[in-house]
Amino acid sequence: MPATAGPEIERLIQLLARLPGLGPRSARRAALHLIKKREQLMSPLTSALETALAKIVICRVCGNIDTQDPCTICTDPRRDPSVIVVVADVADLWALERAGAINARYHVLGGTLSPLDGIGPQDLTIDAVVTRAHEPAVREIILALNATVDGQTTAHYITDLLHNAKVSVTRLAHGVPVGGELDYLDEGTLSAAIRQRTPF
Amino acid sequence: MPATAGPEIERLIQLLARLPGLGPRSARRAALHLIKKREQLMSPLTSALETALAKIVICRVCGNIDTQDPCTICTDPRRDPSVIVVVADVADLWALERAGAINARYHVLGGTLSPLDGIGPQDLTIDAVVTRAHEPAVREIILALNATVDGQTTAHYITDLLHNAKVSVTRLAHGVPVGGELDYLDEGTLSAAIRQRTPF
Repeated sequence: MPATAGPEIERLIQLLARLPGLGPRSARRAALHLIKKREQLMSPLTSALETALAKIVICRVCGNIDTQDPCTICTDPRRDPSVIVVVADVADLWALERAGAINARYHVLGGTLSPLDGIGPQDLTIDAVVTRAHEPAVREIILALNATVDGQTTAHYITDLLHNAKVSVTRLAHGVPVGGELDYLDEGTLSAAIRQRTPF
Repeated sequence: MPATAGPEIERLIQLLARLPGLGPRSARRAALHLIKKREQLMSPLTSALETALAKIVICRVCGNIDTQDPCTICTDPRRDPSVIVVVADVADLWALERAGAINARYHVLGGTLSPLDGIGPQDLTIDAVVTRAHEPAVREIILALNATVDGQTTAHYITDLLHNAKVSVTRLAHGVPVGGELDYLDEGTLSAAIRQRTPF
């Protein structure tokens, strides 16, 4: 764009465009919206970012993102310390927490094994999962990984490492999504749903 | 969400969700992306917002958003001072500049007349358009307003106010969008394109 707005505004647009979900055009709209709502939105957002920058830390126990270390979940006495839910990413942890699926602790791997992308065991916190699985309080490791090739490879890899640990290793059920229509489901999901059928 | 992340992260997500183009779910993804790319994205974005907050001003002449007042466009000696392009919003000004459509000056109304939403002439900078139209250097006012009822009402209102001024008042051409297919166009656009046909 020619010199219509100052370079400061262009820089803001460029940075906003790097957020997932915003393209160059919507970043422009977002910047304009911020500038128009300077008091109500731009100023609070700037402060929130400053606070987050200053306070956010990675939990040394589980890899969760929080403003305290160990994180809120690891230090919560009401959480079941005997179950650890292994997830690939903090986004997955958030998703399970939104669902209120389980009141346990977590372990964030930081990704999944992916030979094609050059991601090996040393790039993830797999060693820490094994260490935690040997703690006396821990009785179950739930592998809550994506039902993709990479996710399942990672699950198998971790299961192999845990064969000496006195824990049961479980994984998420496969089946028909709640609200899902059979007609639209792939064969793999339907076969799994039949194989793992439950009494009515 | 229960207490999985600190309130600072929740606040950041809430504020990001108020940007146009981001919903609650994508705001969560954006926040996570920012936190992961703290050095490369979160920190520069925070600085860009701080700079914008401190520097951005509204041009007292044309209503454009810039970091100087009068704005870059109003003070640019290479711009034709005899033509003023009247737009509803800064986003429209940016769109015309991106297109490189004209090398003139602008006037941002701040919206369009809309009796249903209670927006009358006193809420827009229509008086300033009339004042500027009476400046000796100005010879043409281009009404670059949306081809909607509100946009065209505003255009008619301004045209009426300018009948004493020694300027020609023009508006954008209606017609087939470049790259558009006739089959998909509405009757109004097609009729306008026929009526305003030009020699080949």
